[in-house]
Amino acid sequence: MAITVVGSVAYDTVETPSGRYERKLAGAATYFSLAASFFCDVRVIAVVGEDFGPEQESVFKARNIDTRGIEHTAGKSFFWEGSYLENLNEAQTRNTELNVFASFNPQIPDAYRDSEFLFLANIDPVLQRRVREQMPDVKLVAGDTMNYWINDHRPALLEMLRGLDMLLINDTETRVLGGDTNLVRAARKVMSLGPRFLVVKHGEYGATLFHGGSQNSAEHTFRAPALPLEEVVDPTGAGDSFAGGFFGYIASQKQLTPATFRRAMFFGSVMGSFACERFGTERLQEISRAQIDERFNLFRELTHLD
Amino acid sequence: MAITVVGSVAYDTVETPSGRYERKLAGAATYFSLAASFFCDVRVIAVVGEDFGPEQESVFKARNIDTRGIEHTAGKSFFWEGSYLENLNEAQTRNTELNVFASFNPQIPDAYRDSEFLFLANIDPVLQRRVREQMPDVKLVAGDTMNYWINDHRPALLEMLRGLDMLLINDTETRVLGGDTNLVRAARKVMSLGPRFLVVKHGEYGATLFHGGSQNSAEHTFRAPALPLEEVVDPTGAGDSFAGGFFGYIASQKQLTPATFRRAMFFGSVMGSFACERFGTERLQEISRAQIDERFNLFRELTHLD
Repeated sequence: MAITVVGSVAYDTVETPSGRYERKLAGAATYFSLAASFFCDVRVIAVVGEDFGPEQESVFKARNIDTRGIEHTAGKSFFWEGSYLENLNEAQTRNTELNVFASFNPQIPDAYRDSEFLFLANIDPVLQRRVREQMPDVKLVAGDTMNYWINDHRPALLEMLRGLDMLLINDTETRVLGGDTNLVRAARKVMSLGPRFLVVKHGEYGATLFHGGSQNSAEHTFRAPALPLEEVVDPTGAGDSFAGGFFGYIASQKQLTPATFRRAMFFGSVMGSFACERFGTERLQEISRAQIDERFNLFRELTHLD
Repeated sequence: MAITVVGSVAYDTVETPSGRYERKLAGAATYFSLAASFFCDVRVIAVVGEDFGPEQESVFKARNIDTRGIEHTAGKSFFWEGSYLENLNEAQTRNTELNVFASFNPQIPDAYRDSEFLFLANIDPVLQRRVREQMPDVKLVAGDTMNYWINDHRPALLEMLRGLDMLLINDTETRVLGGDTNLVRAARKVMSLGPRFLVVKHGEYGATLFHGGSQNSAEHTFRAPALPLEEVVDPTGAGDSFAGGFFGYIASQKQLTPATFRRAMFFGSVMGSFACERFGTERLQEISRAQIDERFNLFRELTHLD
C-alpha cells in the first residue's frame, strides 16, 4: 500500500541545548516520509527551490521514497529557524521564509493516483484541501495543523477538517481548536468538526488516541507512552516522525482493527523517539527496521503489566 | 500487612473551576490512608486540634484506619487554602496555617511497632526522619516531599532521603531536586541521594517508576497512564491518593517482584483518578474495592496492545 504525503520539504536552522546546525534538509513532509518509509511506499508532493539538488534527493532515494511529485522551481526552498534553548518541548520560531511555498499549487502525478492513503502535513489548509479534492478515492486521510492556522485561518481550516478521517495535533492545539481547557472535552469537540480519529501528541509524555464514544470507555481511548530519553538532542520533526510511524504502520496493514490502531500509536512513539536522538533527520536516515522493532518491544515492556 | 503513615490531617479551603469548599477534612495522611485502606491495614500518626471531633474520626473509622497515633491537642488543626482556578495541574497556595503542627513531636504507639511498611507523607523532613528513626525494623520506607523543603531545607531533606527506599514526587520536584532539566538524568541523580525507587508523578499524564540501571532498559523503567478525565472536579490529594494506592498495593503483596511494582503503579493511578472526581475526600469515602478493580482493568485496556 502507498501513502501520498503533501507538505514542506525545507531547510532548518536550529539551536538546542545540545548544539546548533545551519540550513539542514528538513520539513514536515521529509520527516514524515522518512519515518513512514520503513512501513510502506511513500510518495511526496512538495515544492523546492534551486538549493535542493542531488544530495538532498538522495536522502529520499535511499529510503525508496517517490519524489516525482516534488516540483523544482526558481528561488529558494522553504526555510525555518527555531530554538529549543528555553524549552525542549516547544520551539521558539526565530524566522520563517515561505520562499517557493508562497506560490505553490500542488499537482498530483498520475503515478500517485492509486495511493490508498493520504497525509496532509502541516501547511496552509487551502493547499491541504486542494490536494484532498484531487484524491477523492483514497481509503483514509490523515492530517496535521498548527496554532497559526487554528487562530488566523479558521474558516479554511474547518473546511479542511471536514475532509479528514484522522487529525494528529498536540495538547495545546487540541485545547485551542476545541475551545476547552479539559483535554477530553476539547477532543470530543474537535472530532465533531470532522475527523473520526484524533491523536493528541503529549511530547515527552506520549500520545492519546481518541475515537468517539464516552471518555471512560477504554474501547475509545488509547494511550501510548513516550520513551524517557536521557538526551533529547533535537526535538525538531518528532511530531512528523510520530505521524509517519503511525500512519505508515496503518498503511502497511490489510485490516484496520482496534489492535492496528494501538500498534500504530506505539510505532508513532517509536519513530518520534528516534527522531529526537540526533540532529535533524540524521537518526531516521541511519536506523533499520530491526532497530524499530526492537524499540517497539521496549515500549511494550515499558507499559505492560504482565 | 500494615502501613504506618505520618503526615498532615488537616482542613482545606479549595477553589476549582467546578466550585469551592470551606474547611473540609483533608491533609496528605488523610488522602493516603483512605486510598491505602482498600489494600491493607493503615495506622496514622498525626496531630489535630480541638476542631477535630467524632465526625472527622468516623471518616477514618469507616475505613478501619487505626487512629490511635493521632494526637489531640489544644488549638486548631493544620489549615491550607488553595486555588486551581488558573491551572488544574498545580495549586496556587493562598494561605497555610501550621497551627498544632508547629510544635508536633511524633510519637509511635506501641501497637504500631510491628508495621512492616512506613510512609512519610509530605511534612518537615526533620519530623519525617524522627519517625523513621523510631521504626528501624520496617521492611520498606517510602516518602514524599515538596519544593519548599527541597529549596529551603535541603540539608534536613538530604538526611531524610538517605533513610528512604522509595520517593514519590512530581516532575518539577524531580528536576529541582536532581538539578537537571532532563527527567531521566534528574531521576538518576535523585536516586543517588538514597531512594532505590523513584516514582515521578506527571499529573494528567500518569507516572514513571525508575529503579536504577540505564534509562533505556525497560526492566528499570515503567510508565503507568492516567485516565483521561472529562471533568477534574478537584485535584487536591490526587498525588497522596496515588501514593496510597501504590504503597497500599505493595504492602498487600507477599512477594515484591517487578510485576508487583508495575501493578502498584496502576493502582496508584487508579486511586489518583478517583480522588479527582469529587471534592476533597468524597470520592475515596464512597468507592468500593470492586470499583477499584474495575478501573484497574480499564487502565489495562487503555495501554495494552493485545
